[in-house]
Amino acid sequence: MTNKEIPYKIYLDESEMPKAWYNLRADMKNKPAPLLNPETHDVMTAKDLAGVFCDELIKQELDDTTPYFEIPEEILKFYKMYRPAPLVRAYCLEEKLQTPAKIYYKFEGNNTSGSHKLNSAIAQAYYAKQQGLKGVTTETGAGQWGTALSMACSYFGLDCKVYMVKVSYEQKPFRREVMRTYGASVTPSPSMETEVGKKILAEHPGTTGSLGCAISEAVEKAVTTEGYRYVLGSVLNQVLLHQSVIGLETKAALDKYGVKADIIIGCAGGGSNLGGLISPFMGEKLRGEADYRIIAVEPASCPSFTRGKYAYDFCDTGMVCPLSKMYTLGSGFIPAPNHAGGLRYHGMSSTLSQLYDDGLMEATSVKQTEVFEAAEKFARIEGILPAPESAHAIKVAIDEAMKCKETGEEKTIVFGLTGTGYFDMFAYEKFHDGKMTDYVPTDEELQKSFEKLPKM
Amino acid sequence: MTNKEIPYKIYLDESEMPKAWYNLRADMKNKPAPLLNPETHDVMTAKDLAGVFCDELIKQELDDTTPYFEIPEEILKFYKMYRPAPLVRAYCLEEKLQTPAKIYYKFEGNNTSGSHKLNSAIAQAYYAKQQGLKGVTTETGAGQWGTALSMACSYFGLDCKVYMVKVSYEQKPFRREVMRTYGASVTPSPSMETEVGKKILAEHPGTTGSLGCAISEAVEKAVTTEGYRYVLGSVLNQVLLHQSVIGLETKAALDKYGVKADIIIGCAGGGSNLGGLISPFMGEKLRGEADYRIIAVEPASCPSFTRGKYAYDFCDTGMVCPLSKMYTLGSGFIPAPNHAGGLRYHGMSSTLSQLYDDGLMEATSVKQTEVFEAAEKFARIEGILPAPESAHAIKVAIDEAMKCKETGEEKTIVFGLTGTGYFDMFAYEKFHDGKMTDYVPTDEELQKSFEKLPKM
Repeated sequence: MTNKEIPYKIYLDESEMPKAWYNLRADMKNKPAPLLNPETHDVMTAKDLAGVFCDELIKQELDDTTPYFEIPEEILKFYKMYRPAPLVRAYCLEEKLQTPAKIYYKFEGNNTSGSHKLNSAIAQAYYAKQQGLKGVTTETGAGQWGTALSMACSYFGLDCKVYMVKVSYEQKPFRREVMRTYGASVTPSPSMETEVGKKILAEHPGTTGSLGCAISEAVEKAVTTEGYRYVLGSVLNQVLLHQSVIGLETKAALDKYGVKADIIIGCAGGGSNLGGLISPFMGEKLRGEADYRIIAVEPASCPSFTRGKYAYDFCDTGMVCPLSKMYTLGSGFIPAPNHAGGLRYHGMSSTLSQLYDDGLMEATSVKQTEVFEAAEKFARIEGILPAPESAHAIKVAIDEAMKCKETGEEKTIVFGLTGTGYFDMFAYEKFHDGKMTDYVPTDEELQKSFEKLPKM
Repeated sequence: MTNKEIPYKIYLDESEMPKAWYNLRADMKNKPAPLLNPETHDVMTAKDLAGVFCDELIKQELDDTTPYFEIPEEILKFYKMYRPAPLVRAYCLEEKLQTPAKIYYKFEGNNTSGSHKLNSAIAQAYYAKQQGLKGVTTETGAGQWGTALSMACSYFGLDCKVYMVKVSYEQKPFRREVMRTYGASVTPSPSMETEVGKKILAEHPGTTGSLGCAISEAVEKAVTTEGYRYVLGSVLNQVLLHQSVIGLETKAALDKYGVKADIIIGCAGGGSNLGGLISPFMGEKLRGEADYRIIAVEPASCPSFTRGKYAYDFCDTGMVCPLSKMYTLGSGFIPAPNHAGGLRYHGMSSTLSQLYDDGLMEATSVKQTEVFEAAEKFARIEGILPAPESAHAIKVAIDEAMKCKETGEEKTIVFGLTGTGYFDMFAYEKFHDGKMTDYVPTDEELQKSFEKLPKM
């Protein structure tokens, strides 16, 4: 099949949408390490987690053998409001770069939350509703997850309490307003609403917050409020499971046109998008059916894969959550305030951490000014103004395409365009005004942070 | 064909996309009245318009007999980056309203400009480039058109100067930033950059601006700058021609599933979306092939159809543009500052004005608080956060669906969801905080404004 026959945008039919999520862990020989009780270091059981998470989601979290989970009908119905997401052939970008590479991106931004986060938000809200809960609590960094969860909760009539990392809360008043449109309450974190928030504020007065802090607050609120549970938009196995819909659709769209990917690129914060995008491809790799180069792209200011330690660590700053074995910068690590986008989590999905440790994927880090350069270039060529997070993947996709230009190789590059940057114009403004700076933590800073890793 | 077989979103294949724009005027027995020279009142010729508009666009503007204009290959290519736009079956809304009506909306918001405006922007930029121009000037109100034109100019390497209505410039700093991302320069209007701007500021110090003012400034800048022409995002015949792509796709999608529309609803400011959406349907109506109820929805604060006069008037506040026969509130009319969205133009497309005068379509006006109530309701049910402009159509579509509930009629309602409200959160915030008010001009105010209509 020649290029000409591949449309600019491949939309699957509704009938071709995935009916089940794919659980990558089922195909992993080395399973991700289990969550541990932060005090006893015992393996967390479903019972231990029951006060924090919804029951059905705990099952998904702990199950590393069942390969497929059927997507409930009500979630499929919601998916149909904004999915299938298009797999776009970046003809204009290829032409502009004059590269022999074929570039595709899976665009997850065509929904009001502006990102892929909605794929898991609706699932988590559904199970909370099924369990008869009143509401859920969560944290949000750049605001994509909080918006997504607000939409999902509104759909099912659940209350939604969002702790938003303070720096984002201040820079993104309109994000807050979208969440309000969907009826959510939004609190800047750290706040005086929780004990852990008060403690963090006492220790770090004037902090701009971090995902780790906000998680601690949201968890505390959930476990101390009747009829509430905590939900998380990344890192967890259940989230990667729900996000597999991204990869499954991508693969189905490529298969439909007989295209075999060579390189798959995704940005990585906690791993929700990357884990979802790569899942069916990694599955083939694990089963020895195909090979792919898989590249995680992270910010140089928060480089958990490339400079972190693979160790058990707290998932949150307040050290109230279970321990997870992951690539981590230490639960006390907070990215420099000049860091503009999301991808500010200190750790990484334990599933992706295990795959990375097993040499099944690569990781690279990029600085934010070069990320915004790539973002602006992409916006002008492909018409879509990307979220800063997504632009990490764009930057590396362009780099790989330019390598193909040098070597003459016609590689097929697929990357995840996780969302739009419409609520990130504050950061774009800084970039346009030449006020954006790069920050890379020093070895000494990281060393100091590593010292706080729990002794196992 | 039963409902079940109609997907949530109907996407045409690329091969099914329209290859030509439809010129509704060709099928009109009573043609829209010609543009007149503002001083001599002579009919404007192509030669008269040559200093203001691009040559090819003038041809399209004046041609009321050619039914189809082929869409140039380069424009089709650009269209494929964000089109075809989905025709969405609003299953969730129908269910929530418990109406027997079938509701569809054509969603034009899945592009970075956030609205249908890109359909004409890319066409106008293309013809400017073909003519070897350096750049174009324009005005923008809510910011959708300016953003769209910035994107289009960036694509073709044209300079883009945007005069943005001051109230929007101040309320929407991020809109400005998106335009900057695409390399455009943005000036709040009225400004001291032009003679007409200085004059308006002297007469109305502290004015928050209007589209009419901004048009005057943009036209002056174009005619006084070598290698520049003026482009306009609505009102003109050429714009309705380009926007016919909305209606053609809508009709093709309905036809594909054997669905016949009963009621077609669109918001109306200058008429670009409404004129485009209804064009093939109105064509059938004009040719006696089918009948449809067609409803224009305008803001009660700027009610040109429902309370305006059908008369020759200036297209701009500075009275430098040609005279157009249209439903108008008078070129000096400026909507009250509490008016939140776009749709703030004092006049109306001369084509739509003629059709309305001939009784071929209806018009109704709605107040902005009820518009935002409908917007929030729609966002929560259908997941898409609409632009305030689009929410005018939503409000009336819901009203019509509720009438069907009363009568039990299974009417098919199609409305235009012109864009997203991501840059309108300032207005949503006012609404959430209970600070949004309604304003309806008094008869005396309108009478005073009508007194300034040119004597013919």
